[in-house]
Amino acid sequence: MAGMSTVAFIGLGIMGAPMAKHLVDAGHDVLGVNRSREPVERFVEAGGRDGGTVAEAVADADVVITMLPDSPDVTAVALGADGIYANAKKGALHIDCSTIRPDTARELAEAGASAGIRVVDAPVSGGEAGAKEAALSIMVGGSDDDVAAARPLLEKVGKTIVHVGPPGSGQTVKAANQLIVAGTLELVAEAIVFLEAHGVATEAALEVLGGGLAGSTVLARKGAGMLVREFSPGFRVDLHHKDLGIVTAAARERGVAIPLGAHVAQLVAALRAQGHGDLDHSALLKLVEQLSGRG
Amino acid sequence: MAGMSTVAFIGLGIMGAPMAKHLVDAGHDVLGVNRSREPVERFVEAGGRDGGTVAEAVADADVVITMLPDSPDVTAVALGADGIYANAKKGALHIDCSTIRPDTARELAEAGASAGIRVVDAPVSGGEAGAKEAALSIMVGGSDDDVAAARPLLEKVGKTIVHVGPPGSGQTVKAANQLIVAGTLELVAEAIVFLEAHGVATEAALEVLGGGLAGSTVLARKGAGMLVREFSPGFRVDLHHKDLGIVTAAARERGVAIPLGAHVAQLVAALRAQGHGDLDHSALLKLVEQLSGRG
Amino acid sequence: MAGMSTVAFIGLGIMGAPMAKHLVDAGHDVLGVNRSREPVERFVEAGGRDGGTVAEAVADADVVITMLPDSPDVTAVALGADGIYANAKKGALHIDCSTIRPDTARELAEAGASAGIRVVDAPVSGGEAGAKEAALSIMVGGSDDDVAAARPLLEKVGKTIVHVGPPGSGQTVKAANQLIVAGTLELVAEAIVFLEAHGVATEAALEVLGGGLAGSTVLARKGAGMLVREFSPGFRVDLHHKDLGIVTAAARERGVAIPLGAHVAQLVAALRAQGHGDLDHSALLKLVEQLSGRG
Amino acid sequence: MAGMSTVAFIGLGIMGAPMAKHLVDAGHDVLGVNRSREPVERFVEAGGRDGGTVAEAVADADVVITMLPDSPDVTAVALGADGIYANAKKGALHIDCSTIRPDTARELAEAGASAGIRVVDAPVSGGEAGAKEAALSIMVGGSDDDVAAARPLLEKVGKTIVHVGPPGSGQTVKAANQLIVAGTLELVAEAIVFLEAHGVATEAALEVLGGGLAGSTVLARKGAGMLVREFSPGFRVDLHHKDLGIVTAAARERGVAIPLGAHVAQLVAALRAQGHGDLDHSALLKLVEQLSGRG
Repeated sequence: MAGMSTVAFIGLGIMGAPMAKHLVDAGHDVLGVNRSREPVERFVEAGGRDGGTVAEAVADADVVITMLPDSPDVTAVALGADGIYANAKKGALHIDCSTIRPDTARELAEAGASAGIRVVDAPVSGGEAGAKEAALSIMVGGSDDDVAAARPLLEKVGKTIVHVGPPGSGQTVKAANQLIVAGTLELVAEAIVFLEAHGVATEAALEVLGGGLAGSTVLARKGAGMLVREFSPGFRVDLHHKDLGIVTAAARERGVAIPLGAHVAQLVAALRAQGHGDLDHSALLKLVEQLSGRG
Repeated sequence: MAGMSTVAFIGLGIMGAPMAKHLVDAGHDVLGVNRSREPVERFVEAGGRDGGTVAEAVADADVVITMLPDSPDVTAVALGADGIYANAKKGALHIDCSTIRPDTARELAEAGASAGIRVVDAPVSGGEAGAKEAALSIMVGGSDDDVAAARPLLEKVGKTIVHVGPPGSGQTVKAANQLIVAGTLELVAEAIVFLEAHGVATEAALEVLGGGLAGSTVLARKGAGMLVREFSPGFRVDLHHKDLGIVTAAARERGVAIPLGAHVAQLVAALRAQGHGDLDHSALLKLVEQLSGRG
Repeated sequence: MAGMSTVAFIGLGIMGAPMAKHLVDAGHDVLGVNRSREPVERFVEAGGRDGGTVAEAVADADVVITMLPDSPDVTAVALGADGIYANAKKGALHIDCSTIRPDTARELAEAGASAGIRVVDAPVSGGEAGAKEAALSIMVGGSDDDVAAARPLLEKVGKTIVHVGPPGSGQTVKAANQLIVAGTLELVAEAIVFLEAHGVATEAALEVLGGGLAGSTVLARKGAGMLVREFSPGFRVDLHHKDLGIVTAAARERGVAIPLGAHVAQLVAALRAQGHGDLDHSALLKLVEQLSGRG
Repeated sequence: MAGMSTVAFIGLGIMGAPMAKHLVDAGHDVLGVNRSREPVERFVEAGGRDGGTVAEAVADADVVITMLPDSPDVTAVALGADGIYANAKKGALHIDCSTIRPDTARELAEAGASAGIRVVDAPVSGGEAGAKEAALSIMVGGSDDDVAAARPLLEKVGKTIVHVGPPGSGQTVKAANQLIVAGTLELVAEAIVFLEAHGVATEAALEVLGGGLAGSTVLARKGAGMLVREFSPGFRVDLHHKDLGIVTAAARERGVAIPLGAHVAQLVAALRAQGHGDLDHSALLKLVEQLSGRG
């Protein structure tokens, strides 16, 4: 797998499109597949190939990468008569970069094994910017051999690629990631509204906060946008809501208390219920403002 | 104030001692004052001078720096017959690096003005490590002139020095800092216990979390210690509890909703009520474990 | 259905046993069914009949009542070749008094309709005491006719029987009931620990609290036991945990914010994770004590 | 004190006016005092006497009752040259029915003792309706003798009068009362919005909830009004916000964890910050609706 591979890339959305492009740029033969046609056409213009249907695209692929919204999407594409596992070559490698339920990831790994397909879960963190800059952080679950096989490709789209355990582990770490990210966004939002209410110079304040123990990637990447109420995604509230459903269910299953995690899950759900599901998740600030009778 | 100054440094604790030492190293004439004698003796061995009482130390000082635990401590040292404002030279500069209530900071600035003393609030973030490495983040409140006068000295102890507004503003930003830090510690604690409960390789997981949107200074500096349950301070739970009292009161005063901030304030209060006030604030992990019936 | 009926009663647990007995006392012919034998034998001693298997018991029954722990239990007993719907007479009435998911209740109603069985969901509130005293509050979902048919029997086991809507509605109201009950228990627990910490005469305090706007059935029935740390069930933490899973899922599904409900669900989950699943739900007091470093 | 007394009643507001009237009706000689004149005039029409200033009214009084908004109001009226303790007869009894800080109540009891005045704290629960119907629940702190002396008068305005401990204890119990009441209102609000979102017949649902373990005085007195969004006070959000400040401070002082109490305090603060301070506290429902994107 160290040389050039034939890669079927399924899901050319905000994240998938730049990731697939990086693989093209690295010299791989990449067949793009997407439910709607337009992203495929843009991908072809960018140097990729039109993969046709899932079954067609995976037939000759060494590697199949999926980047899809939710657990049922991945299951639908992987299983079934027209799916990856029924149509890919024996020994092909399926790298699922979607964020899905850890138990679904484990089920896919088992279904893949039965069909002779090697499966790795490799969800990513870093957002649209990270995808464009090939600077994603990737948390990988799978066997040592399979993860080793996936690594050269993942290194083309990410900067920090870490093997965190057996199949499903990547999704578990991604769930923890989403808990921390949602909570940090909310904390930064509360801090900003607090500072504004006290008449402090907020831009200067964020600079100094970033330099101390309160510093975070969220603050660095999202803080300035939050100050000017720029909430175009980025990462949509709807998707973060889905992910918080995954983490709260997984915590409940093992009896882990996540008091702040569960709390911010309610706030994200409220933001979505108010019709802001299409905004960037940093729009949690809107809710803090509303609760504070401001803005 | 650009040249070498005579500095009275009051409060030679975990934070104050290394800060005072940096000023000595920079060539200033520094008179150390502390309630107990031993820190003064260590300071003299390190090249400082024994300042005697507050009144004696401030008599000839160009600058008085205070680094004390709480609002009443600073008030006691600043006001009163034996205090700074009654005994310092007219035009002397008082830089308060303690973390205290913003309204107390404003009151001190007014009392100082009446006594001909210039007052700046300059609380710091970065912890013991930041103090030792002269890498503190310092949030400064005061008039333009007074902050400009303080800056050369602050640059000897910190890396990010930002003027955030009029007197009291430094304390307001520090309050926001403490809200974010407590919340982030709790989020990281929840994530770690969650990952452990799911059998994930936590060291690898923290590495990859740190590389994505979940990354933070808290995770980078405290994560490894939390994994091995190393909770020697650092920054004590008792002090963070005090600081969260400041931020919740200041939020309430302006009608700002801080749902996660108020929530984590309860958790820090619980940790303290359980007798863990002397541990590092990262010991919030103990509470998450306890609530999860683990460890 | 106004006269004497043949009733198959499935599930002779803490709640089911006294309920079935009330029906016997009212003159009905009641066939008891239970997974383990001992409760059936006690029921026979109390004047009931041994119903044998589910299939046997329901064969001649006019009414089938189920009182089982969770959604899968009811589904297993209702559906399948040996279940209620395959073996009961056309036109028989199935009253499910279990607390299960509203969507499962709706699915059962549909499956029943296909099989010619009339289905009513009729979960109860009032606990073991309410069951023994035939003083249960019963929230009934179903068609007007079916609920009218069920009412004479329900009146033998409950005091407040209210038709709240179509199939599933009873379960929805029961979910709301469990949200309020868990939250009220926690509030009373917080109040008690608060009063004890301040050295107030707690017995007198609960009396006066009960007489004002803070009065509740929880306080009246559980307060005294909480004061003396008597936590034998009653209603087990495990079951309330299950029910809070139902209400949080149902709230999430419709985008309803339940900030206190979600918060207390975390506390109940923590109590369970700590190994207290078999205690009465009023044992939330233990958690408040623990968090307060007391007891 | 069993016979007819001369009573100075200070504070003829929503609660105070009907309470003073009950004392008149019981045959006492009651001198009314109020900051604004109109309530005094109405009180005179109702059979009371115009007490003039505080100093004048208390000069000949056997008993002085205060019913005022907040701690500073009571302190102002009790202490100082024109206040109760400087002008009342030695041995007079001061019954403070206001809801104030427990520590302020203890300070007043000490100040009273120095001045030869007996002081009892006797805050009430039951709202405007309870005051009008002389059905208040009254939590009394003070010495045995003083509480015994106060009881005959308190029995004219309340139904449940309980001595809960030494001076200040009444206020501590009232603080616990306000914690429970705010939390219960929020729980009922969440339940109502949840039921509405699921299309359940809410009036019927509240009836059946009231009959089971979820029943409460809040549900019985406020539920129907909440269903029709009738939020005229009753008890104002502003006042409940003040009271939650008292209870959170008192809990913090003793290290008592009140997770739900602190949470609902944030929600009440948010409701107030949004400009709803003058609505009845049951308007917490508005916030739940808003968070749920409804109404």
